[in-house]
This record gives sequence, structure tokens and C-alpha cells, in this order.
Amino acid sequence: MAFAANKMLTGLVAATFTPLTTQGEINLTEIGRYIDYLTEKQSINSIFVNGTTGESVSLSVAERKTLAEEWCQKAKGKMDQVIVHVGCMSLKDSQELARHAAQIGANGIAVIAPSYFKPSTADALRTFLHHVSSVAPALPFYYYHIPALTGVDVPLSDVLENIEELIPSFRGVKFTGCDLTEFGQCVSHSRPHWSVLYGIDEQLLAGLAMGAHGAVGSTYNYLGSHVHKLMSAFEKGDLIKARAIQFKIQELLSYAKKLGFDLGVNKQLMNDVSGLCLGPPRSPLMPCPHARALSIKQKYQSLFPEN
Amino acid sequence: MAFAANKMLTGLVAATFTPLTTQGEINLTEIGRYIDYLTEKQSINSIFVNGTTGESVSLSVAERKTLAEEWCQKAKGKMDQVIVHVGCMSLKDSQELARHAAQIGANGIAVIAPSYFKPSTADALRTFLHHVSSVAPALPFYYYHIPALTGVDVPLSDVLENIEELIPSFRGVKFTGCDLTEFGQCVSHSRPHWSVLYGIDEQLLAGLAMGAHGAVGSTYNYLGSHVHKLMSAFEKGDLIKARAIQFKIQELLSYAKKLGFDLGVNKQLMNDVSGLCLGPPRSPLMPCPHARALSIKQKYQSLFPEN
Amino acid sequence: MAFAANKMLTGLVAATFTPLTTQGEINLTEIGRYIDYLTEKQSINSIFVNGTTGESVSLSVAERKTLAEEWCQKAKGKMDQVIVHVGCMSLKDSQELARHAAQIGANGIAVIAPSYFKPSTADALRTFLHHVSSVAPALPFYYYHIPALTGVDVPLSDVLENIEELIPSFRGVKFTGCDLTEFGQCVSHSRPHWSVLYGIDEQLLAGLAMGAHGAVGSTYNYLGSHVHKLMSAFEKGDLIKARAIQFKIQELLSYAKKLGFDLGVNKQLMNDVSGLCLGPPRSPLMPCPHARALSIKQKYQSLFPEN
Amino acid sequence: MAFAANKMLTGLVAATFTPLTTQGEINLTEIGRYIDYLTEKQSINSIFVNGTTGESVSLSVAERKTLAEEWCQKAKGKMDQVIVHVGCMSLKDSQELARHAAQIGANGIAVIAPSYFKPSTADALRTFLHHVSSVAPALPFYYYHIPALTGVDVPLSDVLENIEELIPSFRGVKFTGCDLTEFGQCVSHSRPHWSVLYGIDEQLLAGLAMGAHGAVGSTYNYLGSHVHKLMSAFEKGDLIKARAIQFKIQELLSYAKKLGFDLGVNKQLMNDVSGLCLGPPRSPLMPCPHARALSIKQKYQSLFPEN
Repeated sequence: MAFAANKMLTGLVAATFTPLTTQGEINLTEIGRYIDYLTEKQSINSIFVNGTTGESVSLSVAERKTLAEEWCQKAKGKMDQVIVHVGCMSLKDSQELARHAAQIGANGIAVIAPSYFKPSTADALRTFLHHVSSVAPALPFYYYHIPALTGVDVPLSDVLENIEELIPSFRGVKFTGCDLTEFGQCVSHSRPHWSVLYGIDEQLLAGLAMGAHGAVGSTYNYLGSHVHKLMSAFEKGDLIKARAIQFKIQELLSYAKKLGFDLGVNKQLMNDVSGLCLGPPRSPLMPCPHARALSIKQKYQSLFPEN
Repeated sequence: MAFAANKMLTGLVAATFTPLTTQGEINLTEIGRYIDYLTEKQSINSIFVNGTTGESVSLSVAERKTLAEEWCQKAKGKMDQVIVHVGCMSLKDSQELARHAAQIGANGIAVIAPSYFKPSTADALRTFLHHVSSVAPALPFYYYHIPALTGVDVPLSDVLENIEELIPSFRGVKFTGCDLTEFGQCVSHSRPHWSVLYGIDEQLLAGLAMGAHGAVGSTYNYLGSHVHKLMSAFEKGDLIKARAIQFKIQELLSYAKKLGFDLGVNKQLMNDVSGLCLGPPRSPLMPCPHARALSIKQKYQSLFPEN
Repeated sequence: MAFAANKMLTGLVAATFTPLTTQGEINLTEIGRYIDYLTEKQSINSIFVNGTTGESVSLSVAERKTLAEEWCQKAKGKMDQVIVHVGCMSLKDSQELARHAAQIGANGIAVIAPSYFKPSTADALRTFLHHVSSVAPALPFYYYHIPALTGVDVPLSDVLENIEELIPSFRGVKFTGCDLTEFGQCVSHSRPHWSVLYGIDEQLLAGLAMGAHGAVGSTYNYLGSHVHKLMSAFEKGDLIKARAIQFKIQELLSYAKKLGFDLGVNKQLMNDVSGLCLGPPRSPLMPCPHARALSIKQKYQSLFPEN
Repeated sequence: MAFAANKMLTGLVAATFTPLTTQGEINLTEIGRYIDYLTEKQSINSIFVNGTTGESVSLSVAERKTLAEEWCQKAKGKMDQVIVHVGCMSLKDSQELARHAAQIGANGIAVIAPSYFKPSTADALRTFLHHVSSVAPALPFYYYHIPALTGVDVPLSDVLENIEELIPSFRGVKFTGCDLTEFGQCVSHSRPHWSVLYGIDEQLLAGLAMGAHGAVGSTYNYLGSHVHKLMSAFEKGDLIKARAIQFKIQELLSYAKKLGFDLGVNKQLMNDVSGLCLGPPRSPLMPCPHARALSIKQKYQSLFPEN
């Protein structure tokens, strides 16, 4: 069976920002450098593209295709896996992107719950996910659970029950939520060939304790090398060390949140730390005010001086 | 100046459902009959298309264009005004739809706040609305405020402050919210050439008391003739009669909500009452269970026996 | 039957602040002056004491008794009705206060839903209300609905269904909520001897349109004379005038909310407008910062210059 | 200094239910048996009384005193620590209970944030806590953070900043929340003589990973012996075993939640498992329906057969 050959999606996965020009147009020229930065400076081997961090819902379908193609092409030979998020409010759009992801050789696709018309039952959500997956049946499929942004909070256990009967290509969950009971049950009931990845960077250690197979997040773009140490310390049972790193990440993000932290600020921090030119975010997100960017960068440097 | 010639958008406006086939594809053939039904049976003279009721966010950009075109063409000579909702999560998509609306002769455009990346300040929201309006500067522009679905709750008074300096084509608000203080202030501070329309059908009378210039809603598709009587009674100062109608609408919707009421159920009620074939909703919405549809239709008939 | 003789509770009712000393102790000496102010300057004839405005949940049972007694005694011959709120988190405490209210000659009692352990069904809430009412069966009983503060949102129609079978002394609802559908249904299904009073001062006009029998609120302490004019204009069908007053109240409260408006600020505004010495609020509420008080008072004076 | 001699509050702490008669009156006679059950069957050495599990806000001040006294007296020589929760909506009541706790020899007091008038700033909350602690300055003081029930979500880091300057007796936090970032920062910034206890039983493992010094919860009343094993496995680095126990607890509570799980159901499960007669809960909580109790007990027995 085809999927048996697939590698599991584990370890540290960076959810990439979408490079934009200062005019807010997509900027393909930065993608190669971006991939090199991730592999060389942050030891990142897998990426999740066109997701929340990638501002996908602010992009047109055509832009998402162009970007997905470029990410897959440039990552070839450098990254282990490129997972393309194809979730949209519109099923038609999601299907179009899923078909396209299959054509360009993505290693998998992920889909969020539609958030304007919120599926009110597990059945409604499963039906939507099924319709997307069915047009790209050979691609590993991941459900991307992010209730704080989608507002969709149907019990995950109901969503996952016998999910492979409906979605044979189902291979796991990107769980971006604070409810570790739901996450734990998700790990507990996952099948051996599933990947259950945790997505709240500032409490990764809690996710690992619950049995996360890996982590996907935006801060791994600029904190990947540190988080590798955290994960390695955790593996060795050195919780003192793992906590020390986790607490610094928490302190950075708590500090940023007090000043005002959103994707635009996050992207600017990545620009500042990496030296890449990923641009500002696209409206309705606003560019990061300069003073705020400076202050957060200084906090970053004081917490992680070795970078 | 061009806009001075524009008619105000007042009175009763139906937010139309999007006709779909049973397979979930758009069904243009029903639009002509639909318009005739609205004008002849419900005395509706203005429509708001591709909005929430029209499942716009579940449609692709191409589908929305095709639909908008058909609505405008078929309504010509029959409707006073066709307002096309062009709001999308993606600014690019919204701009494309706004340009298209201008080409097809729409009487105005409306835009919701993006709801995945929520504008966190009035400035962020205004910037987004400005970018959309600026590609169709000759079209009357309406902000469509619907916080329960978008989750965007920046103070409306801040959004509207000097809004015509930023959006010269600004002509009003479709206010679909329960906060009548905010609505009252919106009416109080509106300019004479603005239309402030209330959008919660079951408490329209409260909106009228606060000074609403008109009403936009989904239930006017099948309750328009009754709501005309409500509005007429209100105008004459006959609150007893106006309330009697309003209370029946409340009773219908409260009854439906206890059984489970969403856009799919709403659409089925319209199918049942009108005899039109507007189809089921598209995923992630689910078709209305038969028993529920029957029960709500019976309630409708008992409350509004003359139909 | 005893209750037939009871006057209905209608018109404008002030929810009174609790006079405290600067040390935060209850200050009975101000109550007589307070009642005179309300009757003479604001034409208020009924009061609702020990409610939310009265910081009742911040008071001990003993303090609430002392206050209720003083209010009833000083109001005798001056006020039409004194309704004593006896709601507590603890049923025992509520019962003790209900018995006491009967002894001191209150005209009725009102009870909020407990808000820490929230009744999760209408049945649970009705049971609690029943247990309170049953110890003072001769006193008119009002349910005080204030979901924004209690977090209790069981459907009011379920709470009221056949409520007199359970609570024979049931006489109405103080509805402090923005959902005018629920309010309308409450009016629509009320019995002739019930009083359904609206409690959101800044949208009273909407409540009146829906058929409110009266109004209870905190701002009537200092805006009563104006609101009498609003209600009178509404009665005469002069909505232009009614709206003009309503919009000024909205503007005052919107202005205050932007600066930060809570019960402490509200109380200070009352102190400033009335000249009474009602003191600061009790912890956990904080005293109103001086600059904020000044700014809001100036706004009040500019909107209502005749006072 | 007096406090230096105090033992830290660590390990597993049971939040006790309040024994009631079937008529809903407090039932002191069961307390002795209850303590024996906890020590002998669940190896519990510290208890947290009159808290959320103990329905404290549904009790009168007099009842809380009587109970606290009985718990302290019967626990003498059997328990290491008895912490008395003295939080109330009313500061006066809290102070009275704090003074009383000192008189009866409690090992510490804990206070929740008032939840009707919610402190809107850290300063407002700190002021309230300070006023309570100051009447019992010799008793170790714990802030009991439970935002889901109180609705108070001021940043905990702001609450704790230099808290000992304001509350010299401050000794820690009972953190009953899902935000492990806030919890982690709380651990990270705690002083050596503080106890930071985690209070969400179904994700205790996550709390331990973040560095919790102990755990307080209601399920430890009937799952204490299992959770001791979980904690011991965690200490030894055996996460496989710790997770296995944690997942069973999650499964039990997830199952119960689907059926309807509240404090009344929880109490009935304790009655069923322990054989104690703790009675039903007090209104506004409702007794657990028999079928639900039976079903949850069976689930408990299937998951934890050795009991």
C-alpha cells in the first residue's frame, strides 16, 4: 500500500511565513534563501506552508498555488517534508488546492475547519474534510485543529472516530489548542501510522509530556535551534534544562503579548532575527510598529544572546 | 456629483439565498423565478446578494461573479436596487469582486470584516475596507457589520469617524447585531445620504425605534409581506399591531432555534414556503433534516395561516 | 386574593447605589437625603435596592438587612414601591434575606441567578428561585435576569413556563439584557398582572418598542428627569424627541465606556451630579480615578446642560 | 521568622466535597469517616476544604465556619495540612472567615477572585486579596486562580509581581486553568518558599512537566491512589506509565462530560466509589440523575478495575 512507504511527520516543523514585497505582493525570490536559513541556522527539516503563519486565508487561490509550487520545488533535496495547507472557507477552493498539491509533489496536505459557517457537529466537519481529501486520495491528510482562530470546537474525539473509513489518507492532526485533555485523548487514540503534532509553541513541553510526536509552529522559524535542545533535553529526561528553555520562550511571548503581538509582529521579529526580507503582513493585518519591533527584538536578544 | 443621483437604500431588503442544485453546484436557472417570487409575493424591491444568506464565503470567486451577474441582469427593471456583497477573507479576492460588481452595474457593494485574521483596531478594519472600495470608487459602499459571525467587535463609532475622507463612496451600514446602543449611535451620527439598515429580523421593531432607515434580512424572503405590515403599522404609530407581527416572527425563530436553526434549515424553510428549488446548502453547512423542516414549516403555517 | 391588591410595578425605577463611608462601611445617614433627591429632583417613585448597583454581593447578609430596613423605613410615604433584591450565591442567605424583606414591609423581592455555580438548565434555576420565594410567599417575586454578569443564559421562555405553578407569588422580570427577541417573547407571554421591566438604560427606547412595562436602571438616579421625558415622548408617538434623549444617554455612556466605566465610576458620577455623599465602591471595585470622573462629569454637563 | 517553619504544601491534595444530608443541611458526622477514607484508601495527606468542590459559595458564613472547624479538628494528627478556602464575593465575609481560620488552627488559607464584580486589573485583585490576608497575617496565603469559574483573567504575572510586599504571608498559587504558559511563568517566577499547585486533574502530567510542586483537585478524592502512581512514574522518568494513567483519567472525565458532568455528578461518583454518604449537592446544583451516575460508575470500574 502506498502510504506504508510514507515517512512519519515528526520532530520540529516550521510553519512558514509567506514572503511579501513591501507592496504586499507575494515574493517568490526569497523562498530559496528562506529554506537555506531554516535548514542551516535552525536545523529545520520539515515545513508547513500556506498555513496560518503563511497568511493563507489572506491570499488568493492563484497566489497559494504559485507559492506552494515554489516551496515544493526549492525544498526538494533540502527538506524532508513539505506539508501544504489547503484549507479555505470554500470547499471548491480547497479542492482545487488539494488537487494542485498532489500535482506538485507535496508530502501531505492539511485542512482547517471553515470558520465563517462553522461546522456545528463532528459529522459536518468530517464531511467537509472528506470532500477535500477525496480529490487528492494519494496525499497524506492532516486535520489542522486551531479552535481559537476558527471558533470550531466540536469534540475532536468525535471527529477522529473511525476517520480512516471516511478518509483513507488520514495521517494525523496538527493540534493548535490549549486543551491538553483533548490533545492527550488524541494521542491516546491515534493509530501507529498517525502523527499527532502539537502547535502551541509556548507550552510545547506540556504537549511532549502528553506524548506529542512532534511540533509545528511559527516561532520555530527563529527559535528552532533552541527548541531542538528543549526536545533533546526532554528525550533524555532532563526536565530542568527543557523547562529553562521553555520558560524563556514563554517569557519572550508573554512580553510580546503585553506590547501587542499578532502575526504582523511575529513576522517582523522573524525579519529582524533572520535578516530575511519577508515583508510586512497583508491587510487586514497591520505592519508592526517600529518601536514595538525593536523592543521585542531586544527582549529576544537578551533571552537568547547566543544567536 | 455622481452619488447625489443615487437613490437611498431604504425599506425592506431581502438577503437572497444562493440557488444550488442538489449536487451543490450553482443553479442560475432559478434566479429569474426567485426574483419574480420576491417582487410578486413578498413585495420586495431591493436585494442583497452573495451575502451571508447567499453562502458567499462557501463559493469560489468565479461562482460569485457568475451569480452576481445573473442577479443584476435578471433584476433589471424589476428591482430597485441590487447590492452585491464582495467581502472575502482575501483582500485580492474582494478587490476582484468589487471591480466586477462595478462592471455589471450593481447598485452598490457591501463588505464584511475578515474573520480569520480579525482586524484588531478600527484603523486595521478601515484600511481593509478602503482598499476594497478604492478599486470601485463609483459604487456606493456599505460596511456590513455582523460581529456574531466575524468575531470583529471594534467600536463602530471609531470605524465610521470621518470615514468619507478615507472612503468617499461610503453610503451606510448593514448592521446585523444586537447592540442597539451601538446601532443608535450609528444612526445618530450618520450623514443624511447614508442608509443605516438593521439586520436582526426578530428584533426589527427595536431597530426601527432607534431610527433604522430600513432592514436587510433573510427571513424577508418568506416573511416580506408580513414585515411590510409591521413597518407600516410602526410608521402609523400602531405599536400594538407592529408588536403582534414582531412577536410572531420571534416565536417562529425561537421555535426553530430550539429544534436547531442554521442557514441550511432557513434555506429549506424558504424552499418549502416559496416552492422555489434553491437546493440544500453547501458543505460545511448540512442539509436540513426532513423532520425538522416539516415541524418548522408547520409552525410557520400556524403563525402565518394566510400564506 | 392578596396579590390582586398589589399595584403593578411600572414606570421608572431607580436601582439605588449603597451609601458607603470613605472607609467603605455602610452609611445609613445618607439614605433619607438620597430618597428626597430621587423624588424631588428626578421624580422617581420606586426604587430597587441592594441590587447590582447597590453592590449587594459585596455586602454581608447583616449589612444587607440593615440597609433594606433603612430604605423601607425612610421611603415610607415618599416612594410607591421598594423592591429588595435578595439574590445571593447561597440559597440559605437568600432565604434569610427574603424572610427579612417580608418582615420589614418591602413591596417585593427580586433574585438573580447564582453565578458561581451556574444553573445549567431552566429547571435548576426555577428550583433555586422557588426555594427562595417559598419562605416569603406573600411578597411579589421578580426574577432579575442579567446574563452579562451572571453568565446564566438558560432560555427565559423555559424559565417562565407555568412559573406561577411553582412560584405563586411570581410577578415579573427585571430584564437586563441586550437580546430583545428574548425580551419580546417575555413581554408577549407575560400574564396581565406581571411587570416586565427593561434594564439596559442606553437602549430603553428599544425595550419600550417591544412593550416594556417600565424600566429599572442605575442611570435613572441622575438621568431620571430626562428619561421621564423620553418615556412621555414615546407614549405620545414623538419618536424624534424620544430618540434625541436616548442618543444623548448613549453618547454619555459610550464616552464613559471608552474611558473605563464600571460601577465605581458610575457611583462617582452620581456623587458629582447629585451632591450626595455615597462614597467610593467597596473592593473588589476600585474608586474612580479623579481625572476620569471629571471628564465624564463634563461630558454629562455638556449633554444635559439644564441640570 | 514564623513562616520559615511552615512546611511546603506539595504532593497530592484533595479538594474535599462538603457532606450534606439528603435535606441539604451540612452533615458533620461524616467528616471523620471521610478523612479516614482519604488517608487509608487514597493515601491523601493534605486537604483543601470549603473550596469549589466543597460548594463553599453555596454555604452561609456560619456553615463554612462550622465545617472548617470540624475539618481541622478531625484532621488533627491524621493530615499534614488543612487549607481552608475563605474566598467570598463579599470582602467582609472573607475577612470573617480568614480570622476564623486563624483561630481554629488551619495551616493556610486560599482565596478566589470575586466573580460577580470582577476585578478588572491586577491592582484591584491584589487589593482585595491584601484586605483578606491582612486580618490573618500569620496564616500562609494562597491565591486560588480558577478563571473558568470566576471569569477573572487579569495576567497572573501582574498579580504576583512583588506580591510579598503587599501580602507578606503569600505562599503560593492553586492554579486551576488550562493556560500552561501562564502556569509555566508562575512556576518560573515563584520564590523558593512558594507552592505552585496545578488544579486541572485531567492534564496534571502537563502541569508536572511545567514544574508543578503538587496538585489539588476533586478527583483525587477517588483517584488518589492512582495519581500517586502517576506522580511517582513521572518522578522516575517513566512517561509511558504516567501517560497510561493520565489517559485513563482523561477518558473517564471525557466520558462523564459527554453525559453531563458537574459538581453534583462528581459528588455522586465519590459517594458511589467511596461508600461515604456525602449527599447530593445544594441548589442551584442539581442531584445527579441515577442513570448517569450508574453509567459513569461503570466506566470508572472498567478503567480502574482494581478499586
